[in-house]
Amino acid sequence: MTIKLLASNKVFGGVHQRYSHQSESTQCEMTFAVYMPPQAAEDTPVPLLYWLSGLTCSDENFMQKAGAFKVAAELGMAIVAPDTSPRGEGVADDPKGAYDLGLGAGFYVNASQAPWAKHYQMYSYICEELPALLEQHFPISQQRAIAGHSMGGHGALSIAFKNPQRYSSVSAFSPICQPTNCPWGQKAFAAYLGNDQLRWQEHDSSLLIKQLKPEQQLPLLIDQGSDDNFLAEQLKPETLVDAAKQLDYPINFRVQQGYDHSYFFIASFIEDHLRFHFKYF
Amino acid sequence: MTIKLLASNKVFGGVHQRYSHQSESTQCEMTFAVYMPPQAAEDTPVPLLYWLSGLTCSDENFMQKAGAFKVAAELGMAIVAPDTSPRGEGVADDPKGAYDLGLGAGFYVNASQAPWAKHYQMYSYICEELPALLEQHFPISQQRAIAGHSMGGHGALSIAFKNPQRYSSVSAFSPICQPTNCPWGQKAFAAYLGNDQLRWQEHDSSLLIKQLKPEQQLPLLIDQGSDDNFLAEQLKPETLVDAAKQLDYPINFRVQQGYDHSYFFIASFIEDHLRFHFKYF
Repeated sequence: MTIKLLASNKVFGGVHQRYSHQSESTQCEMTFAVYMPPQAAEDTPVPLLYWLSGLTCSDENFMQKAGAFKVAAELGMAIVAPDTSPRGEGVADDPKGAYDLGLGAGFYVNASQAPWAKHYQMYSYICEELPALLEQHFPISQQRAIAGHSMGGHGALSIAFKNPQRYSSVSAFSPICQPTNCPWGQKAFAAYLGNDQLRWQEHDSSLLIKQLKPEQQLPLLIDQGSDDNFLAEQLKPETLVDAAKQLDYPINFRVQQGYDHSYFFIASFIEDHLRFHFKYF
Repeated sequence: MTIKLLASNKVFGGVHQRYSHQSESTQCEMTFAVYMPPQAAEDTPVPLLYWLSGLTCSDENFMQKAGAFKVAAELGMAIVAPDTSPRGEGVADDPKGAYDLGLGAGFYVNASQAPWAKHYQMYSYICEELPALLEQHFPISQQRAIAGHSMGGHGALSIAFKNPQRYSSVSAFSPICQPTNCPWGQKAFAAYLGNDQLRWQEHDSSLLIKQLKPEQQLPLLIDQGSDDNFLAEQLKPETLVDAAKQLDYPINFRVQQGYDHSYFFIASFIEDHLRFHFKYF
């Protein structure tokens, strides 16, 4: 598997780079961005945080707006930000160009329905293909954590709950916690997975959390802004928090007063998330 | 003078806001962004850093990409990021839509030539109208510093050198140091100021610095990346550094190895600039 360097910028003594590669999972050219901390320059394997972005984002939003590099450089932690969907000629999109389906809205599932199934295989891409590719090309260790925002928070939680052996910890900002029961999730899951709601449940964190055995309960941190416009209708963290309580799963769910859904919120608390993940590597 | 709130986001305990207002200087609606640190919530006047952005930027680039808020919040420093040109219907632009003239490229001068003179009065806007507006609407003190990037570095240096009594310190990332002798500056100055090169010299920092009396020499910090694609042809910091040496003006000029012209570079060193300015408030 080869990768093509698109851009490279020194930042906080490390390097931010963008790459593209032909993906077997999504059958198109995929782009990702990676931050390698200064420690990686000595070919010492460094731990890696997967960051899954939200609706409309590409590999660029987190890298440009989250302000994560100072602490990542201090800790010696790499970060990868994949794209949020397949892209390019022939890749299906919402017929009306809606922001919440198709391009920029892969929802981290493997689609089974036409016209989506051919390229929208983001679950396999994130869980299997991308890790193998990164471990081939970069000095990273087997220590992995996963985090994300909004749709990417759903991605991080659901992928971690389905693969607890692969990650040492998981965190999210403003995650979609119950996609089977909110407009964004229902629209995407109906399109990508069809009408069988049993298939939807395989990607709903508020249900997946109940399948974890106590020894599979990863350390989990969630930050949610109290002034987030999407909180009540789309995000529904209370379902996940209630499920965790019933399971005695000690999640750290924090409501941050006055914060909204934007990267200004993420930037304000990303340091806590990096230090949280670093503790469990 | 009234201002209209466009957006508001809590960040690092303070607030980032975007406003628009009808400008007397530029005869159009101008947009600016401001960060007010938590300390301002108590109506304690806080010092203010003016940040002037580079070519193609709006009020948004610095606020989204520089990662300045954590330290600004710690220090209790407000930051304002004005737009880089007038905009809107009837505002002249480069006939070919070039990025280095017209919209997004006001060069912080008052244009005297048609078709630019009517709206391109960015010098007056930054030096006079905006400060008066901000001091009317926000709890800010009379303590002002000024900084900028590239074209905005030229703006910060030239404005500070022309008005040393107004600012307590000045800094720049990758500034255009000799606009009378580089393609960007020559193109813009010829269009905005006409062919009389004496008018150009009134905005050339490598010349303006020589007019300062010793007691007018503001504390000055410049960061320049060694891998900046624009360094040799457009930025020419050596002319400014040489002039400072001849004057025994103790400027702090730092070459940062391996860094480029991007906001990744700015983010890596903005903390130093904020602490530098804070020292002189």
